[in-house]
Amino acid sequence: MSEAPTDLLQQRYGSGASPAVIDNPIITALLAHRSVRAYLDRPLPEGTLETLLAAAQSAATSSNLQAWSLLAVADPERKARLATLAGNQAHILQAPLLLVWLADFSRIRRLADLQGAELEAVDYLDSFLVASLDAALAAQNAAVAAESLGLGTVYIGALRNRLSEVIEELRLPPLVYPVFGLCVGYPDPVHPAAIKPRLPQELVLHRETYRVSPTEAGAIERYDRILADFYRQQGLPSANWSSQAIERLKKVETLNGREQIGQRLKKQQFELL
Amino acid sequence: MSEAPTDLLQQRYGSGASPAVIDNPIITALLAHRSVRAYLDRPLPEGTLETLLAAAQSAATSSNLQAWSLLAVADPERKARLATLAGNQAHILQAPLLLVWLADFSRIRRLADLQGAELEAVDYLDSFLVASLDAALAAQNAAVAAESLGLGTVYIGALRNRLSEVIEELRLPPLVYPVFGLCVGYPDPVHPAAIKPRLPQELVLHRETYRVSPTEAGAIERYDRILADFYRQQGLPSANWSSQAIERLKKVETLNGREQIGQRLKKQQFELL
Repeated sequence: MSEAPTDLLQQRYGSGASPAVIDNPIITALLAHRSVRAYLDRPLPEGTLETLLAAAQSAATSSNLQAWSLLAVADPERKARLATLAGNQAHILQAPLLLVWLADFSRIRRLADLQGAELEAVDYLDSFLVASLDAALAAQNAAVAAESLGLGTVYIGALRNRLSEVIEELRLPPLVYPVFGLCVGYPDPVHPAAIKPRLPQELVLHRETYRVSPTEAGAIERYDRILADFYRQQGLPSANWSSQAIERLKKVETLNGREQIGQRLKKQQFELL
Repeated sequence: MSEAPTDLLQQRYGSGASPAVIDNPIITALLAHRSVRAYLDRPLPEGTLETLLAAAQSAATSSNLQAWSLLAVADPERKARLATLAGNQAHILQAPLLLVWLADFSRIRRLADLQGAELEAVDYLDSFLVASLDAALAAQNAAVAAESLGLGTVYIGALRNRLSEVIEELRLPPLVYPVFGLCVGYPDPVHPAAIKPRLPQELVLHRETYRVSPTEAGAIERYDRILADFYRQQGLPSANWSSQAIERLKKVETLNGREQIGQRLKKQQFELL
């Protein structure tokens, strides 16, 4: 698989539809991202965790609140239990490291308790969002850093499927919840991951105000075909994006337990007002 | 300001407390992040927007839903109005480009409408979270790409302060909301931005399960001093992190209008169940 930017863009957008981008080694690395679901049984280089955390902490954080924490899981038995809880994702067990990104107001809560101070704002949806988003910015920096070391990653949103059990497994106190996981390990070259095509830029980009493109339906049909071709090339069951996206959101049941996170987060003292 | 990794880490963690990291040009670039709040009146290189969007779309997205959009604001009058709505942040007007990252289920809603399909799962908090987090992963890739081009960025969470007016200004349809903004432009070398110190790694990192460090209070006191020194060196009013964090979350009023986003999002048809 070639790593030249034009080739990467063709893989990302399908041939003939690539945007012209400014090229440098960092941008090339970002364009080359693929989610890795098959890992070698090979330990990580010494200092990997500290490096990924330093990259993560270098991301922006709202009002410097730093309302997130990182939980590193390497114990095979714990990873096996978490793999089961996350809908039997075998790569969680296979990867040497599972990073769990935590939204975390408990640190500031402990500080405030020492001073007898209230923290009324923590009860609001916006604060929940601030902590969750900051965890995401941090995680993405860590993912980019991991890939720069020749490692692969995949996000595990399914850590929210059975949120209660994951919270218990990780012994998370009130005001802490797992936003998602991130597997880290050396990609198995026997099962190479591919760059997944995305929607064309003209459907995602709006200028000045939000305007639905009059050619949206046709552009999505083209993308459906590009994605179906991609799945076929990968030896996967062919599916088009429209059907997949609708299927994923059609019924409450397709949330696989995540329909309950609002209730569970309230028990975790996120009031979400 | 030196850009050697050891110097960057000293700035990030304070002298004497730096973790040992693995070094390469991408990791060095991540460690060098600083939020830029003073921009030159200089246009962006041609292709910047397409490049940042390609980097953004290359980030992971949950179930390939791609439930986000990017709104690029360059019109000075619109930027001026948004600057006012975001608590008078002058750098929004100064920067040539404001990227507004939108959580967006309206695209899939339009597809489902064509097929007469339901989208029950969109009504749940988890879906709101998926779209918001994916927008954050995308934005962080764009921020990293921008910095690789010699540009500066700063996130604008305050776009949620007066959410109704921002939604109207940007003409966002139901199932779309602005997660945050990101200013992009050439940093003004007359007002250089500095690397802000962060909490020590031992307070942020947990292994296997969540455990509060018995030395947490002392470590935070040390960080309070590091941050107060930093503000003093920058000629800013000295403040320690503990007080700042508590002050930011103490009262509902310190949310500056964001206490209402839950209600406003429901009008935007995010039911947050």
